[in-house]
Amino acid sequence: MQRALDLARQALWLTSPNPRVGCVITSTDGTVLGEGHTQRAGGPHAEIMALRDAAARGHKVQGATAWVTLEPCAHQGRTGPCCDALAAAGIARVVSAMTDPNPKVAGQGMARLAAAGVQTETLDPQSDIALQARELNIGFLSRMERGLPWVRMKVATSLDGQTALQNGQSQWITSAPARADGHAWRARACAILTGIGTVLEDDPLLNVRGMDAPRQPHLVVVDSRLDMPLSAKLLGTQGTGEQARQIWIYTAAPATATPENLDKRAALTARGVTVIDCPGPGGKVDLAAMLRDLARREINELHVEAGHKLNGSFIREGLVDEFLVYLAPQLLGPGQGLANLPALTELSGAVLLAFHAVDRIGPDLRLLLRRA
Amino acid sequence: MQRALDLARQALWLTSPNPRVGCVITSTDGTVLGEGHTQRAGGPHAEIMALRDAAARGHKVQGATAWVTLEPCAHQGRTGPCCDALAAAGIARVVSAMTDPNPKVAGQGMARLAAAGVQTETLDPQSDIALQARELNIGFLSRMERGLPWVRMKVATSLDGQTALQNGQSQWITSAPARADGHAWRARACAILTGIGTVLEDDPLLNVRGMDAPRQPHLVVVDSRLDMPLSAKLLGTQGTGEQARQIWIYTAAPATATPENLDKRAALTARGVTVIDCPGPGGKVDLAAMLRDLARREINELHVEAGHKLNGSFIREGLVDEFLVYLAPQLLGPGQGLANLPALTELSGAVLLAFHAVDRIGPDLRLLLRRA
Repeated sequence: MQRALDLARQALWLTSPNPRVGCVITSTDGTVLGEGHTQRAGGPHAEIMALRDAAARGHKVQGATAWVTLEPCAHQGRTGPCCDALAAAGIARVVSAMTDPNPKVAGQGMARLAAAGVQTETLDPQSDIALQARELNIGFLSRMERGLPWVRMKVATSLDGQTALQNGQSQWITSAPARADGHAWRARACAILTGIGTVLEDDPLLNVRGMDAPRQPHLVVVDSRLDMPLSAKLLGTQGTGEQARQIWIYTAAPATATPENLDKRAALTARGVTVIDCPGPGGKVDLAAMLRDLARREINELHVEAGHKLNGSFIREGLVDEFLVYLAPQLLGPGQGLANLPALTELSGAVLLAFHAVDRIGPDLRLLLRRA
Repeated sequence: MQRALDLARQALWLTSPNPRVGCVITSTDGTVLGEGHTQRAGGPHAEIMALRDAAARGHKVQGATAWVTLEPCAHQGRTGPCCDALAAAGIARVVSAMTDPNPKVAGQGMARLAAAGVQTETLDPQSDIALQARELNIGFLSRMERGLPWVRMKVATSLDGQTALQNGQSQWITSAPARADGHAWRARACAILTGIGTVLEDDPLLNVRGMDAPRQPHLVVVDSRLDMPLSAKLLGTQGTGEQARQIWIYTAAPATATPENLDKRAALTARGVTVIDCPGPGGKVDLAAMLRDLARREINELHVEAGHKLNGSFIREGLVDEFLVYLAPQLLGPGQGLANLPALTELSGAVLLAFHAVDRIGPDLRLLLRRA
């Protein structure tokens, strides 16, 4: 099963919005007959890839065991049900690292295998392998179980907590290896989110660069007043074809607010951008409603790279699941913090997190934190 | 030699202001005949302890090898020269992890052993063991080589770089395990330094608590105007006997400034406190001169626990060798940063450090940083 997890990890940047799944087929004496992982959305799932691999190697799989990191699907989606394909191939036993939380599956895959006479087994959810399997698809699970993307907020900060100087200068606080690592984290996300403030200040591309990414994450901009300049560089990052990135702008200003707004919408739409009305209190975008909408748009992992104002709004509303912090060993003095938060009068009011992982990336430190 | 290093580490809290040294005596077939580490200042050094240990075990040491983490001393200090004791005992070979930087030794220990017919060897200074031996006595080396203590600045901070709320509340940002670990770092220092601001705000004891410390570090207070209240709790932490802690107050206000100043000096002196004049520009204590004076007072490792103003002065003057940072996984919002530093207009003006060690302490992270 560890090999199946390794295969699934190879699909980290590939399968969005589908889960990353690995499958290994072994004979009764443990020989590997075939293996594979899920392909791009619309392509074959891991089980089909493993069956094809076994066939290509000239192996028969009658009586064999299939090890899968996620329960085989039982529904006709863009591809046929994997449970039927396994049973039809004569697989005698299926071991799954975890049940598929997708309500279209949710145990039916294993049930249908059992009904077809296949021996089935699902690992203890508290086992190390099962926990690794959950981690691998934490965004997919979040979307299926909560109807929300897994929100990962990325910040690059100095030891004294500054993400930019007072004059806004922030390029670069962290090292080249840390920035390259940041691109790998962008690549695994279904979408990257930023705020209009960052667009106006930095005019970023917010795509994946410097690595061979099989797809570009979609792009989400929180733009309450629809201030997006038509000259913004990120509008030119859509690409073409099946893997084109979607650009979604969430706004709170009604289309009828001004003639300019209407014109801007028309121009953005003509550029292939989707403008989504999501008004909340105070003329701001309703962030929680936006996240629910993004889940409906099949966003599993949402990578937030925004300024301290939007970061503060996300944190204050309790919408951040994970912080990805690159900590540079520098002192910068007064500057911009990572998030606008209200002043506390009691330490008990702190936002409590827990270190989930700590790694050195070049001269910097990468911290992964989750809610305590 | 690794065993000798381990022995030396057992003396981490004990030997100030002497270096921590370990010694293992082995027979030609590698059998350990005796071992020991340096005792309290004035007590026997590691070599004497190891010779005594061998005698106590009934072992003869003629022809044996002595492994020492620092060159045996050649001078008559509070104890006799160890090199002579080793030669007199019939030790045939002495291997030292490093040369003693003390100008009273500085190779003479090994030279005298060689003159007495003992085979001598000093490890490559770049070898792992030699580097470990240096780390163990980094403060002693700093004092001998630079005439300055090794200045270690301790801060406890939230993920967003705050050491206290705006109202000053800071107890506690870090966890009980991190605070206990902080006491162990205090214990290894020759002295703890703070500023009068911290004394007036927190009225701390600044001693070692919650562990069985063989001695209390001395205490240094930077108090430019001699504002020390006679009721300050730390004035009651001196203890008695040979291991009594010294309290040194560095001030910039001349004794003749006011009659109150004269009275305060008299009262503090009566309490056993030493008031030291160390005026610098702007009515402030000259910190660099103070450090040179502290080295003359045999301070190897100086543990700085001060507020953001004094921290800022130390950092701006480039006087900090190492930062000991306890990072709590919390967001606090606006508050007090770890150091008052000037606002930069260019990132290139940052204080550049490097991570030396990263460890988890309970739920917190302990970062050790040194100048890049």
